[in-house]
Amino acid sequence: MKREDIALNDTWDLSLLYVNSQQFEQDLTQAQTLLNTIIQQQGHLCDTLDHFKSYLRQDEQLDRLLSKLYCFAHLLCDVEPNNAQGQTMLAQVMSLYQQAQEKLTFVELELMDHETMILDYLKDPHLENYQYKMHTLFRQKEHILSKEMEDILAKVNQIANTGEDVFDALRLEFEPVEVHGKMEFLNQATLNQFLKNEDPRVRKEAYEHFFKEYQRYENVFASTLSSTMKKDAFFASMRHFDHALQASLFQDDVPESLFFKILDMANRQYRPLFHRYNAFKKKYLQLENMYNYDLSVPLVKEKEHHYTIDECFDIILKTVEVFGSEYVNIIQKAKNERWIDYYPCVGKRDGAYSSGCYDSVPYILTNFIGDYHSLSTLIHELGHSVHTYLSNAYQAPHNASYRIFVAEVPSTLNELLLMQYMLDHASSKQEKAYLLYTLLEECVGLIFRQPMFADFEYRLHTMAEKNQPMSSKIITDLYLKLNQDYYGPDVKMSPYVGCSCYYVPHFYYNYYVYKYTLGMTIALALAERILKKDQQQIDRYLSFLKSGGSMSNLDLLKKAGVDPLDDQLYQDAYHYFETTLSQLEDMMKEV
Amino acid sequence: MKREDIALNDTWDLSLLYVNSQQFEQDLTQAQTLLNTIIQQQGHLCDTLDHFKSYLRQDEQLDRLLSKLYCFAHLLCDVEPNNAQGQTMLAQVMSLYQQAQEKLTFVELELMDHETMILDYLKDPHLENYQYKMHTLFRQKEHILSKEMEDILAKVNQIANTGEDVFDALRLEFEPVEVHGKMEFLNQATLNQFLKNEDPRVRKEAYEHFFKEYQRYENVFASTLSSTMKKDAFFASMRHFDHALQASLFQDDVPESLFFKILDMANRQYRPLFHRYNAFKKKYLQLENMYNYDLSVPLVKEKEHHYTIDECFDIILKTVEVFGSEYVNIIQKAKNERWIDYYPCVGKRDGAYSSGCYDSVPYILTNFIGDYHSLSTLIHELGHSVHTYLSNAYQAPHNASYRIFVAEVPSTLNELLLMQYMLDHASSKQEKAYLLYTLLEECVGLIFRQPMFADFEYRLHTMAEKNQPMSSKIITDLYLKLNQDYYGPDVKMSPYVGCSCYYVPHFYYNYYVYKYTLGMTIALALAERILKKDQQQIDRYLSFLKSGGSMSNLDLLKKAGVDPLDDQLYQDAYHYFETTLSQLEDMMKEV
Repeated sequence: MKREDIALNDTWDLSLLYVNSQQFEQDLTQAQTLLNTIIQQQGHLCDTLDHFKSYLRQDEQLDRLLSKLYCFAHLLCDVEPNNAQGQTMLAQVMSLYQQAQEKLTFVELELMDHETMILDYLKDPHLENYQYKMHTLFRQKEHILSKEMEDILAKVNQIANTGEDVFDALRLEFEPVEVHGKMEFLNQATLNQFLKNEDPRVRKEAYEHFFKEYQRYENVFASTLSSTMKKDAFFASMRHFDHALQASLFQDDVPESLFFKILDMANRQYRPLFHRYNAFKKKYLQLENMYNYDLSVPLVKEKEHHYTIDECFDIILKTVEVFGSEYVNIIQKAKNERWIDYYPCVGKRDGAYSSGCYDSVPYILTNFIGDYHSLSTLIHELGHSVHTYLSNAYQAPHNASYRIFVAEVPSTLNELLLMQYMLDHASSKQEKAYLLYTLLEECVGLIFRQPMFADFEYRLHTMAEKNQPMSSKIITDLYLKLNQDYYGPDVKMSPYVGCSCYYVPHFYYNYYVYKYTLGMTIALALAERILKKDQQQIDRYLSFLKSGGSMSNLDLLKKAGVDPLDDQLYQDAYHYFETTLSQLEDMMKEV
Repeated sequence: MKREDIALNDTWDLSLLYVNSQQFEQDLTQAQTLLNTIIQQQGHLCDTLDHFKSYLRQDEQLDRLLSKLYCFAHLLCDVEPNNAQGQTMLAQVMSLYQQAQEKLTFVELELMDHETMILDYLKDPHLENYQYKMHTLFRQKEHILSKEMEDILAKVNQIANTGEDVFDALRLEFEPVEVHGKMEFLNQATLNQFLKNEDPRVRKEAYEHFFKEYQRYENVFASTLSSTMKKDAFFASMRHFDHALQASLFQDDVPESLFFKILDMANRQYRPLFHRYNAFKKKYLQLENMYNYDLSVPLVKEKEHHYTIDECFDIILKTVEVFGSEYVNIIQKAKNERWIDYYPCVGKRDGAYSSGCYDSVPYILTNFIGDYHSLSTLIHELGHSVHTYLSNAYQAPHNASYRIFVAEVPSTLNELLLMQYMLDHASSKQEKAYLLYTLLEECVGLIFRQPMFADFEYRLHTMAEKNQPMSSKIITDLYLKLNQDYYGPDVKMSPYVGCSCYYVPHFYYNYYVYKYTLGMTIALALAERILKKDQQQIDRYLSFLKSGGSMSNLDLLKKAGVDPLDDQLYQDAYHYFETTLSQLEDMMKEV
C-alpha cells in the first residue's frame, strides 16, 4: 500500500507537534541560541543561586526543544523515508545534538565540582524536585575521572568499538533451503518461519544452513566478541569499578545481588519448569529425537480471525477497564487524537514502537495486519504510551522520563491481561489452547532463555577480566555446555549450537538481557495479582506509572508494590507460567 | 619429497648450535636463572658503575641465550613441524621470552630515570661502545609515559588490535575461474597465475571473482582499516607525537622529509617512466583496451633451464667477485659448513629467509626448484647472511643487529648484480629480454607501487587524525582516484579497483611500505655505481655491512656512501630503471 492510499484517520497527526516547517526552523534556531548561551556560562554555572536556577531553566528548555525537534523529524522519516525535507530536518537535529554533546561535556564536571554548593541551593523550595536528578549526577562522581583522563577515554572509545562495528557490518549470506521441492531464500526472518515448518528436514536444513555460516566466520566473531568483553572490562576498571557487571548495574542503580538472584531463579530454581515444557512438547509432537531446532513447531494453530481497528479498541478498552477511567480515557484519546500510525506502507519502518517527548503526545507506530499479533502489539505499545502520558502529566520535565529498566513492565503487563481477557472470552478449545501456547512461548524467551544468555555473558566477561584466552573453541564449547543444561534431557543439540552464540547482538550491549527477564517477571507477578482484582495493587501500579523517572528504579518498583530482591516476586511469576503450562497440558490431553 | 630422502649435505647443520637436547636444556635453565638475577636487581641497576656493568653483562648474556635457544627451536620446527621435541622447545623459549618481556618492563624506565648517571658511567673506556645503544634508549624518554599511563596503554593495546585481528581472521572464499573449459580453484596464489593467462577473459574473471568478495565485505574492511588508522593516531598522540607518521619514523630515526621525498620522487617526478612502461606494454600486447588486471601478462617467456646447486654457486661466486675475497669466502663457508636448507619437503615452511643470531651462523631456508627464481632467491638470502655474518664478526653483541630499514639493501643489490651477470652471459636475445622484463616487473612493485600505497596510507591516517568520516565509499573512492593517477592514461580501471585496497595487509603495519621502496632505490643506485667498478663505493659498502646496527640508519647509509635525502640517489636509481626499459624497448622492436 502507498501512504497516500491510507485514510487520514489511520495515520498519526504530526501537526500536533509542528504545523509547518517555519515552526520547526524557529525551534531549531532557538535551540542553537540556547546552546550558545549555556556554553558562554562555562565556569559560572553555580556562581550564585540565580545563576544555578537560570542554568537549570536553560538546560531544561534546550533539552525539551531538542527532544521535540528530534521527535518530529524521526517520526516523519520513519513513515516517509523519501521525504527530503524530513531527512534534512533529521540531519539538522542530529548535528545539533552532537554539537551539544561535544560542547557541554564541561557541564557535568562543573556541577560535580560544586556538589556542596548545589546541595545548599537545593534547599530552595523551588528546587526541591531537583534532588533526585542531582543525586543521580553526584553518585557518578567517583567514577568520573580527571578532564585529561576523560579526554583519553573518549579517544579510546573511538577505537574500542571495532568489535561491535564489525559485527554490525558483517552481513552473512546463506544457502537456500528446500521447502516443498522449491529452493527458498534464507535469512533471519525466513529462518524463524522455516523452524516452524512441520517437516523436520526443513527445520534441520534451515538451522544448519544458517549457523554453518556463523561457524565459517567463527574466528572473526570470536575476535569481535572477545574484544567487546575486554573493552567492557577496560572501561569498568578505568572508572574504578571492580568489574564490568558492577559498572553496568551501577547505571541502573541496582545491586549485584539482583542480577545473581534473577539468574539463580531462572537457571536453577525454576528451570525444571522449562524442562517439563520441553518434555511435553516432545511427547505431544511425537518426535523420537527432538533437537533444539524442533522447538518452534507450533503445538496449536492460530484460528484465522481478522480484527478491525475498532474491534481491537473494543477488546483493549475492556481489557484495561481494571485500571479505571483515567487509564481508559487516555487510550480513547490515543485513538481520537490520532496518536497512532497503524498500517504498513511502502518504505515505512518495520516493527512497532511508542515514541514521544515531554511536549508531544506519545505517538505509536505499528504495522497492523489484523491478526492476534497485531492486536497484542497494539496493546503493548499503548502500555508504553500510557506510561509516558502519565509520567509527563504528573512529573516535571526533568523527572518525567523513565528508564529502560522499568519500561517493559506496563507494556508486557497489558499483553498478559489481553491474553487473559481473550481466554475468558474464547469460543473454542483450540482458541484457548492457542492463547496458552503463545503465552508459554513468549515466557520461555524472556524468563528462561535470556537469563541463560546473561549467564554466558557473565562468564565471558569474567574470562576477559582474568585475561584468560578466548579462542572460538573456548567460547563455543562454553556456549554448548550452557545450552545442554538449559534445554534439559529431552532436547538433543545440533552440532552448530556452539556457534549460534555469534548470532546474538545483545552480547555487545554489556549486560542488557537480564532487564528483559526482570520486566517479564514483574509483569507476570503483577498480572497474577491484578487478575485477582487486588485493588491496592492496582492503585500502587497506577502510582508507579505516574512517577515517571522521579526516583531510583528500585524505589519506583517499590511504589508498584514489587520488590525484585524478594523471592515472592519470582514465585508469583513462575507460578503463572506453571499454571499456564498445566492448563495447556490438561487441555491437550483432552484434544 | 620426504625429509629423510634429502641428502644430508643439502640440509642445514643445526648441530653447530646444539649437539643434543641436554645442551638446549642447560641453556634454558641458565637463561631462567639470569632472568631471575636481573629481576632481583630492580631498583639497583645503576647504584654504582659496577652494578651497571654487571647489569649490562647479564642483560647481554640473557639476550644471547634467548636468541640462540629461539634460533635453534624455530629452525628445527620450520623444517620438521611434526617434531614433538622441537615444538616443546619452541613453546619453552616463547614462554620464557614472554616472561622476560613482562617482568623486565621496569628496566627501561629505571635506566631512563638514571640518564645523567649512566652518561657519566659511559665515560669508562670499557663501556664506550654502549653509547649508541644508550642514546637509542634515552631518545625514547619524552615518549615514554608514567608507569600508571604505560599500564593503561598496555591495556588499551589489548583491545585496539581488533581491526587487524579481524582482518587476519576473515578468510574469504572465491568463486572458481573457468580456464580452458575447466573450473579452477581461486585463491591468492592462483589469482597471480590467472592474471598471467594469455586469455583476457580469464584475467578479467579471476580479478573480478577475487575482488567481488572484498567488495561484498567492504563495510567490514572499512571498519577494520579505519579503526587501525585511528589506533595509530591514538597511540601517536598519547606518546606526544604530532601524528602517526612522526611516531613511525621516530622508530627508524629518520626525518619526515625523507618520507615525503620518496613519495615525491616516485609519485610525481619519475612516475612518467612507469606510464611509459605501461604504454609500451599496451602497444606490445596489442590490446585495444588494457585494464589494470592485464598488466601481469608476460611480455617475454622464461627460457627453460634447470640450475643445479653447484651451478648456482658458480654463478653466485662470479657475481659477487666484485666485493672481494672476504665476501666470496663467506659464501663458500655458507656452502661448505651447511648453513643452507635447500629443498622443499613435506611440511617444510614455504618461501625463503635468512635467520640467525650472534652465536649461530646465519642460516638460510629456501624451497629450491632449480629455476631462475630459485637462483635469484639464493643470492638474495646470501646477501642477508653475509650482512649478518660481517655484523657479528666486526661488532659487539649489542651493536650487531641491524634494522629492517637497511636490511633489504644487501639482498636486493645481490639480485641486481646477478641479473647483470646473467645479461652479460646470456646466450640468446630471448634470455636477455626475459631478464630485463623480470627486473622491470620487480622494480615496478617496489619503486612505483609501494609509494602509491604509502600515499594512500598517509591520507587515511590524516583522515583519522582529523576525525573525518571514513566510510567504505570514501575509502574506495580515494583508492580508485590514486590508482587512476598511478596507472596513467593507457590503463583502464576495473570497477573493483577501489575495493582492492582491502586486500593489502601492509596497511595494518603503520607506515611500513616506504621502507621497501627505499631499500630498492638504494640497491638500484648502488648497483649502478658498483657495476661501474667504483672501488671507493665498494669499500664503503663493505664497511656498511660490517657496521651492523652500531649507529643510526642514516649514519649507516652514509657509511655506504648513500644519502637518501639527496636527489642524486633517486636519479641514479630511476636512471637504472629507465636504461633497463630502453634496452627492452629496443630489443623488442627488433624481435
